[in-house]
Amino acid sequence: MGVVLGIDIGGTNTSFGFVDREGRLLAADSIPTHAQEPPERLVARLHERIVAERQGKPELLGIGIGAPNANHHKGTIEKAVNLKWGACVDFAGLMRAQFGLPLAITNDANAAAIGEMMFGNAQGMRDFIVITLGTGLGSGIVTDGKLLYGTTGFAGELGHIIVDPDGRQCGCGRRGCLETYASATGIRRTAQILLAERHDPSPLRALSFQEMTSKRIFEAARDGDAIALAAFDRTARILGMKLADAVAHTSPEAIFLAGGLAAAGHVLFEPTRRYMEGFLFGMYEGTVRLLPSRLEPGNSAILGAAALIWNELGN
Amino acid sequence: MGVVLGIDIGGTNTSFGFVDREGRLLAADSIPTHAQEPPERLVARLHERIVAERQGKPELLGIGIGAPNANHHKGTIEKAVNLKWGACVDFAGLMRAQFGLPLAITNDANAAAIGEMMFGNAQGMRDFIVITLGTGLGSGIVTDGKLLYGTTGFAGELGHIIVDPDGRQCGCGRRGCLETYASATGIRRTAQILLAERHDPSPLRALSFQEMTSKRIFEAARDGDAIALAAFDRTARILGMKLADAVAHTSPEAIFLAGGLAAAGHVLFEPTRRYMEGFLFGMYEGTVRLLPSRLEPGNSAILGAAALIWNELGN
Repeated sequence: MGVVLGIDIGGTNTSFGFVDREGRLLAADSIPTHAQEPPERLVARLHERIVAERQGKPELLGIGIGAPNANHHKGTIEKAVNLKWGACVDFAGLMRAQFGLPLAITNDANAAAIGEMMFGNAQGMRDFIVITLGTGLGSGIVTDGKLLYGTTGFAGELGHIIVDPDGRQCGCGRRGCLETYASATGIRRTAQILLAERHDPSPLRALSFQEMTSKRIFEAARDGDAIALAAFDRTARILGMKLADAVAHTSPEAIFLAGGLAAAGHVLFEPTRRYMEGFLFGMYEGTVRLLPSRLEPGNSAILGAAALIWNELGN
Repeated sequence: MGVVLGIDIGGTNTSFGFVDREGRLLAADSIPTHAQEPPERLVARLHERIVAERQGKPELLGIGIGAPNANHHKGTIEKAVNLKWGACVDFAGLMRAQFGLPLAITNDANAAAIGEMMFGNAQGMRDFIVITLGTGLGSGIVTDGKLLYGTTGFAGELGHIIVDPDGRQCGCGRRGCLETYASATGIRRTAQILLAERHDPSPLRALSFQEMTSKRIFEAARDGDAIALAAFDRTARILGMKLADAVAHTSPEAIFLAGGLAAAGHVLFEPTRRYMEGFLFGMYEGTVRLLPSRLEPGNSAILGAAALIWNELGN
């Protein structure tokens, strides 16, 4: 039968796992990325480790890689903020030279979308969007059964559509990008502002900005805290409005929310669904479902990267 | 060689023409739509006229139709505001029964996009967007060489992405849609507001709201009128920002502006290009061209409808 290797490159750790055609993760491990080292070193360390771990496994058929700012068309990783590799590294080329196997690379949110299509809740769907709500907001758009790459290979960066051109500072150097509002760090900024605007007592008043994680805000919301609930409501309104705009672009049958903030479940999904539906243009009303991802957050990046190469091997 | 028939159904007139494989319009004509009559009547009148006019022409191979709110997947026209045909008419079915020829239907902006790809400035492009700036704002999105339809068949309604949820009333019943700002009627509303906000003398002060067409505003701008130039600047800023968002969805290599307002040329294109570039997320900077359509405004709808069926006959 054979397996593929799914690799998720992050700024701190690089995780990998052997995944079969049904999406079963046979074994997984990780090594530190050491982002300051040249990428050749990471490739060599990965090779050493994987050669050891593949022993006794079914035949290795290919390698899929999810990485920040990865360009599927060119095989490059470009200007990734958390990797100190400069403007452009031919990462696919380095890996191919080392492993001699079929290989595909894309950004992490695109990999999540392919994973959802192959192994998750998007099975059988032709048109959908996956939104990952972590530190930032990532997105992968599937239209007519295929990932949308566009002319640059970088289509689907909904984290950087503009909510307010005079709004919050974004890590990208601009202001008011969607991910400064709708993400784990975005809701923290919103809660911080609500504490300043309102008088409601709240357990969040005891936390410093650093201590106030989206998890703490979620826990407070679950206990009925007015500030935390308002933070979810404001986040959901902005996210819902921008998802309605995304529907006006590609008309998906479903939008999946994944990542840390999506773990909040009902308290995020209910208002986001309501606002999105309220902002939808008439002909899209009732045509889009807002759904949770089925992939486990811990493994979704590896499974997505594996799905990417399974998908290409199948074509 | 054969020809196809391109038909453009509007609220007032229905235009049609015989178009060859190279996009040459051999003959064109139009009949009144009589939007209050049942659609069967329009189909019968069209048939009568076309049977007469096709005599002496090369073999008729198929029919392409552009119409407001046309659903390519189902062949229907749904809830078109300017046609009093109710919620849903199987227009493709009626036409097929009458003509017995291969037939395709889509909305007018999608037809314009296919026309641009086959006969205009988008030849050879795989990823682009056509924006029609007329009474409203229409859009057709091409990704990987194909029109993007989405799950509903109605993808690409950028006229109804939201600029300001508390903004201007839109014909769709909502508020703040892009077309209430960026269209021939949108710039009129903007000029009207500028006249109220500012003191600058302007020939536009002599015009009633009804008299103030986008053409009058363009003529004033060409003569250096401050109010008219500011109206183009505000329009361009909003359009440029939303085009930057559209790039973050589908990453096109070009965006074409067509329709009445686009005829303003430099006074619209220059600021729109500048604002769009300024609002683009880093990885898209310098990757998108803002270009005029090459199709003549008067014939573009017929040519687009013809291109639609040529495209499908070729597959």
